[in-house]
Amino acid sequence: MPSPHPLQPLSIGETNLARDVIRAAHPNTVLKFRVIYLEEPSKAILAPFLDAEQAGEVTSTTPRPARQARVHFDTAQAGKPPQSHEAIVDLHAKKIHAIESVRADAQASFTVEELDDVRIICRESAVFQSRVAKFNLPPNFDFIVEPWPYGGLDAADDPKRRHMQALIYAVDTTKPDCNFWAYPLPIIPVIDAETREIIRIHEVSTGGGNDPLNIPEGELVNVSIDHMTPAEYVPELLPGGLRKDLKELNVVQPSGPSFSIEDSNVINWQKWSMRVTFNPREGAVLHNVRFDGRNVLYRLSISDMTVPYADPRTPFHRKQAFDFGDGTLGDACNNLQLGCDCLGVIKYFDGVLVDHTGTARETKNVICLHEQDNGINWKHKNWRSGRSVVTRRRELVVQFIITLANYEYIFNYIFEQAGAVTVQARATGIVSTVNIDEGKTAPWGNVVSPGVLAQNHQHIFCVRIDPAIDGHENTVVQTESLPMQIDARTNPNGNAYEVRTTPITTSGGFFANPMTDRIFKVQNLDKLNPISGQPVGYKILPPVTQLLLADPKSGQAKRAKFAQRHLWVTKHKDNEFYAGGRYTLQSSTEIEGVSDAAERNDDVVQKDVVVWSVFGLTHNPRVEDWPIMPVEILELHIKPADFFTGNPAQDVPGRKNFTSQLAQAQRPEDQASCCESKPRL
Amino acid sequence: MPSPHPLQPLSIGETNLARDVIRAAHPNTVLKFRVIYLEEPSKAILAPFLDAEQAGEVTSTTPRPARQARVHFDTAQAGKPPQSHEAIVDLHAKKIHAIESVRADAQASFTVEELDDVRIICRESAVFQSRVAKFNLPPNFDFIVEPWPYGGLDAADDPKRRHMQALIYAVDTTKPDCNFWAYPLPIIPVIDAETREIIRIHEVSTGGGNDPLNIPEGELVNVSIDHMTPAEYVPELLPGGLRKDLKELNVVQPSGPSFSIEDSNVINWQKWSMRVTFNPREGAVLHNVRFDGRNVLYRLSISDMTVPYADPRTPFHRKQAFDFGDGTLGDACNNLQLGCDCLGVIKYFDGVLVDHTGTARETKNVICLHEQDNGINWKHKNWRSGRSVVTRRRELVVQFIITLANYEYIFNYIFEQAGAVTVQARATGIVSTVNIDEGKTAPWGNVVSPGVLAQNHQHIFCVRIDPAIDGHENTVVQTESLPMQIDARTNPNGNAYEVRTTPITTSGGFFANPMTDRIFKVQNLDKLNPISGQPVGYKILPPVTQLLLADPKSGQAKRAKFAQRHLWVTKHKDNEFYAGGRYTLQSSTEIEGVSDAAERNDDVVQKDVVVWSVFGLTHNPRVEDWPIMPVEILELHIKPADFFTGNPAQDVPGRKNFTSQLAQAQRPEDQASCCESKPRL
Repeated sequence: MPSPHPLQPLSIGETNLARDVIRAAHPNTVLKFRVIYLEEPSKAILAPFLDAEQAGEVTSTTPRPARQARVHFDTAQAGKPPQSHEAIVDLHAKKIHAIESVRADAQASFTVEELDDVRIICRESAVFQSRVAKFNLPPNFDFIVEPWPYGGLDAADDPKRRHMQALIYAVDTTKPDCNFWAYPLPIIPVIDAETREIIRIHEVSTGGGNDPLNIPEGELVNVSIDHMTPAEYVPELLPGGLRKDLKELNVVQPSGPSFSIEDSNVINWQKWSMRVTFNPREGAVLHNVRFDGRNVLYRLSISDMTVPYADPRTPFHRKQAFDFGDGTLGDACNNLQLGCDCLGVIKYFDGVLVDHTGTARETKNVICLHEQDNGINWKHKNWRSGRSVVTRRRELVVQFIITLANYEYIFNYIFEQAGAVTVQARATGIVSTVNIDEGKTAPWGNVVSPGVLAQNHQHIFCVRIDPAIDGHENTVVQTESLPMQIDARTNPNGNAYEVRTTPITTSGGFFANPMTDRIFKVQNLDKLNPISGQPVGYKILPPVTQLLLADPKSGQAKRAKFAQRHLWVTKHKDNEFYAGGRYTLQSSTEIEGVSDAAERNDDVVQKDVVVWSVFGLTHNPRVEDWPIMPVEILELHIKPADFFTGNPAQDVPGRKNFTSQLAQAQRPEDQASCCESKPRL
Repeated sequence: MPSPHPLQPLSIGETNLARDVIRAAHPNTVLKFRVIYLEEPSKAILAPFLDAEQAGEVTSTTPRPARQARVHFDTAQAGKPPQSHEAIVDLHAKKIHAIESVRADAQASFTVEELDDVRIICRESAVFQSRVAKFNLPPNFDFIVEPWPYGGLDAADDPKRRHMQALIYAVDTTKPDCNFWAYPLPIIPVIDAETREIIRIHEVSTGGGNDPLNIPEGELVNVSIDHMTPAEYVPELLPGGLRKDLKELNVVQPSGPSFSIEDSNVINWQKWSMRVTFNPREGAVLHNVRFDGRNVLYRLSISDMTVPYADPRTPFHRKQAFDFGDGTLGDACNNLQLGCDCLGVIKYFDGVLVDHTGTARETKNVICLHEQDNGINWKHKNWRSGRSVVTRRRELVVQFIITLANYEYIFNYIFEQAGAVTVQARATGIVSTVNIDEGKTAPWGNVVSPGVLAQNHQHIFCVRIDPAIDGHENTVVQTESLPMQIDARTNPNGNAYEVRTTPITTSGGFFANPMTDRIFKVQNLDKLNPISGQPVGYKILPPVTQLLLADPKSGQAKRAKFAQRHLWVTKHKDNEFYAGGRYTLQSSTEIEGVSDAAERNDDVVQKDVVVWSVFGLTHNPRVEDWPIMPVEILELHIKPADFFTGNPAQDVPGRKNFTSQLAQAQRPEDQASCCESKPRL
């Protein structure tokens, strides 16, 4: 059997083999595995392989890049603190190719078992139980522990300790699946995940904007939940039930989908082709994205995100999640359900995860693929003949969804027929809540339910775009449309404006500017569009949004340097994937993040560049976000700009859809297509 | 028979009656009619009527506002220049209620007949024919005249003359519906629409960026079209034919739509209700928009748009269309086709237009109404129980499409279940082209086809929002999220930011600022949200885009003051609908536009405010925009902000869609709904 394609995720067998190699190399050692996934081949090897493959030059006997696994694991020996490592395992040679220990100032990402441990440690702690008992919860209420990453270390913290924290809520035990975020309790335990001790329990003020920020040392906060009210979302608990007037809307594809799947992870659709992989740090990743065989993107991924909270009270400055880096995404990825998470004809992709013993299991339906209609694609009506030609905009969607405690993020990579790619993030789920005294309000949040404050926060995403615009040597240029003054020679009528193009010559971070219509394009300066004479390129169009607000001297800001520029341009380096840093859990600074890459001050003119697009949402919650927030949608567009010699969707048929119906007894005009000639009336 | 509802557009009978009243009042006068449409009742009368209606207090005997028509018409008497007028006709009294002549510095909007006249005047002119003959077009080519509004007057122009201009193209007469924009000819005739004379013919340089802007007086530009190539979009002319691998995608609604229609123009859908009307200046307009009976918007409309071109060469500074104000939109509105312009179950609305004799006719299908699915609405997964609840986002779309010579605009008012409204503009059609010498390029445009330059331009839209947030006395406030420095007392950890709210107290124009997340909200300060204690409100979220680039001293800028601020707040005044001015054709300044309204410096705190949202697209054409550009999509969102006491879509059922299918032989898991309990694996 030939070796799998270099961009095939590891099988269960390969994953277990990687585990076995690590085990064999560590006799007499207690091992804990965190993640095992495909180590993608070096770009220096893989890029030429993919180009040769595209040219039809790869056969079953062509040598393939070494098949490797990346393994994150801990070793523990009696009397010593456990040590985290990352190893590259060569699956053919069945040996460790490289290994390094996690640097001393960093912590490995947590596993879902560690997260659950936080819950167990609190549950089992007599100290914690006795603290909770002081709340005198009603008999049908218990407490619930919502584990959280610790955020950044304070000066007083021991950086060697592996900290975790938790938010605490009351929960009505008589109502399965009730919304406990409606009953926040004002204590935050901090836990040592190694020693399984409770380091301390923070008492948090329940005051409003006019109260002191923090409560005096040693005082306990006393609250009742009597004034709080249920805020349910599961249908059987909704007091008014479900609305009854929503009629069924079906997406039906009688001839099947327009996409096809090859070699289990190659997607072909409407001139696009790509490989999709799944890994526990980034979720769905797209590789070797081509249009009509032409190279567009080498790799496209959600690199990182940070969610800093803006409540000034200690310890809420440590509510700052890096939802991709802090823990492993694998278990957060939803098992997507037919007829729920998308409509039409769906292809699901499974992933492979490991438990703490390194044993692989399949995780079902972590990615789904489907088509959708998005209105009109292009239209023109010849007003002389009365003839319209109109086509629909069909899109292909690669979707994955993650649940991170209260919140969910829905990520869609959307391809369209006119050569554009959209990366769409939808934020939904339950806003993170804390306790506030009845009748009070606070400037750092909004009261969304009696006694419940939803704190102001930001969601800042980074999409990593590794472009390959007709090859790997590309240049990022900035274009701006700038006003010109009236001038007899150049602008006699005052209507002209200047389009100024400035290449980015050195790696760095850059700001957006909608007032000058600043646009960043990735161009291949060595290849000119035969029609326009301009370099072939794609433009990167993120939503222009606010960057990180935290004071630059704050821990939040130091940990998330990536979130302080709208766009980063770096020179490609293998394994440099994570904008917010290789290790984010408990980080005090961005460790090997995009700011470090940018600081190499690399020459990036006609080099193998990587573009990192940063955008987000300053989320000052509305009452309407409660109990589950309607999706907030953010879209980054990647659009051809003189890459093609015309509209690539010009040949999309304007077929009439015969299943469309009139809502009432209107008589349709007789017309077999959407582009027939019809004399003007 | 009771009088029609005050927000019923005029019937054919009422329209003809209005014509007859005007005719009777003008004996012995040659009349030319431009438009006749419903004169909406004064807000002082209509708003209380609608509130009473909502309260169930209107019966068939309740007095109704006077039923009136607005009539634009010209009078011509022998030996005098024609005069344009606007009259308000009382249809019950059958008499003119008010009449005013179009002010001396303005021109009435043109009619489709006048547009066609430009074509005829050129065609019939021996001078023009002889100029075109010098191009020595190939035998199978003829010339074609594309009429354009004149843009702003130059100092040398006689403001009393009614100017029109045209772009001239060559057209292959052997190919019906071929794309003549691929063969631009470098002359621009200017016409007196009253005297039907050709005033002059501009010769336009075909040079590039290094050539002089204008050609010497008296010289003729000589070009050949030999190097130009066809660029077709109708399917039978596409050299490669249509793609064959796009499979059918049907939207099927077996139980019919979720909307219902009452009284022919009331739309009820998912707790929303509204009236839709059609008029020849604004297209589809929404009135009395309520959610669950609560007042949200009194009126919502596309107020205006301007499309200035940035080519510095004379006379391209006069390529500045006001596509809503220059001509009448009525004939530009597409007759929407079942199975082409939308999918699913469609309700069409017809309009009424008049010809130059004032005689009414029905214009079919100018507005369509349908539902669409837009992915996930909200989702949450309880990670403890493994149970997900997920609902789809259903949207209601009110659509109209206009064709303005080469371009089309698709406007969608989109309602969603969570209480938000989106105004979506899609730009498509054919970019406006001029001739450029083979091999040359120019900084004011892009070569999209051999010899064809698509000029840089902007599309700037204005959406008029007349809010009624639980009543008509509302206040616009600006909120910003601002950084705070580390401060021991207020921000000890540096993570806090300030949300600053500033009410707008005086009418005016305002700028966006994404870096401070500046958001404009319309609030009713007299009504507090019972949960949050904040004023009930809606926020206005346009895309933050570049404003008008033309020099402020230029004609383009003076004509489009509205396009120089992102948001205007004014105090309501009846009939103040058009941001770019009541009269835009041949205007030299914004005549009775939003800037004039703002300059009243009205107190706008808890007053009847109107919000005007400005956004657009700086469109420096790509080769991919040729021959028909893929839609560019811009969306303005109007979202509740503490208007409700929770997510208004919380009761949307998470029904499983049973027509969704697996793309391959995967076995679906057995689950009857999208929110069933399922233990975590």
